[in-house]
Amino acid sequence: MVDILHRVGVEDASPREVYDALTTTEGLARWWTDDTQGSGEPGGVLEFRFPPVGGFDMEVVDTRADERVSWRVVDGPEEWVGTTIDWDLRQDGDWTIVNFAHRGWREPVEFMHHCSTKWATFLLSLKSLVETGTGSPAPRDTRISDWH
Amino acid sequence: MVDILHRVGVEDASPREVYDALTTTEGLARWWTDDTQGSGEPGGVLEFRFPPVGGFDMEVVDTRADERVSWRVVDGPEEWVGTTIDWDLRQDGDWTIVNFAHRGWREPVEFMHHCSTKWATFLLSLKSLVETGTGSPAPRDTRISDWH
Repeated sequence: MVDILHRVGVEDASPREVYDALTTTEGLARWWTDDTQGSGEPGGVLEFRFPPVGGFDMEVVDTRADERVSWRVVDGPEEWVGTTIDWDLRQDGDWTIVNFAHRGWREPVEFMHHCSTKWATFLLSLKSLVETGTGSPAPRDTRISDWH
Repeated sequence: MVDILHRVGVEDASPREVYDALTTTEGLARWWTDDTQGSGEPGGVLEFRFPPVGGFDMEVVDTRADERVSWRVVDGPEEWVGTTIDWDLRQDGDWTIVNFAHRGWREPVEFMHHCSTKWATFLLSLKSLVETGTGSPAPRDTRISDWH
C-alpha cells in the first residue's frame, strides 16, 4: 500500500471556508473541475468529470463540520476504485492547515506518480480559491505533462 | 516506509537538458535553490541551502547519463537523513518524462505531507526552467503554507 500525502496552508481563512469548498458542488467546481455534480453530504455521491478523459465518482463516507471530509472512490480508473481520500482541516493562527491523504493505492504505478503531482496543483487551486476567490479547476487546470 | 512520488513531462526537451539541470550546480541553482554548491558527480556531495531555515546535503550515489540520478541525504532535517531521492528520465515523443521518488521516510509525519507538496512545486520549477529558461528556485519559490 502506498499513499499520496500533501499539506497546504490557506492564509487568512477559516476552516469553514475550506470545508464549504469541499462539501458543496459550487465550491468543488471552482477548484477541481467545472463539471461537478451530486451531493457532498454523508452518503451522497459526488461526480467529477474531466471531458473528454473521464472522471471519478466519490461516495462521501464521513464529514465533520470544519474538521474532516472523507470520500471513497466508487467509479473511475481501476487504480482509483476502492481508494480513499481524506481531508483534515485545522486552524493555526491566521492559517487553515489542510492535510490531504489519498490512500489505498495497490501499486506505485506511474499513473500514481502523475496523480500525486496533479493533486498538488489542485490543492494549490483550492488554496487560491479561498484566498483570492479564483481557483484553477479543469479545464483551466495546470498542465504538468503529456498526460495533462 | 512511505514514499513521495511525482511525475512531470517537459515539453520539447531532451533528457540531456533535464539531466544537466540535475547534475550541475548551475542547473540545480536555477530551479531548487539559489544557494547550491558542491559536486553533482558520482561520489560528490551537493549542498542545498534555504536561508535562514537550513538545508540538505546529498551524496550523489548514482548517475546514468540522460537516464537516472540518485542521491542519498547525508545531512539535514532528521526525517530526511538516510532517505533517497531518485530521478528517472526518458524520452517519449516530444516530451522528456521525469519520474521522481523520495523514498525511505520512516513515518508519514505532517512534515512529509509538506515536503510532498513542496517537491511538486519544485518539479514544476524544473519543468519551467527547461521549457522557458526560467525556474522558481528559493528564495523565489512558490509559497504553499505557513511552513513556506
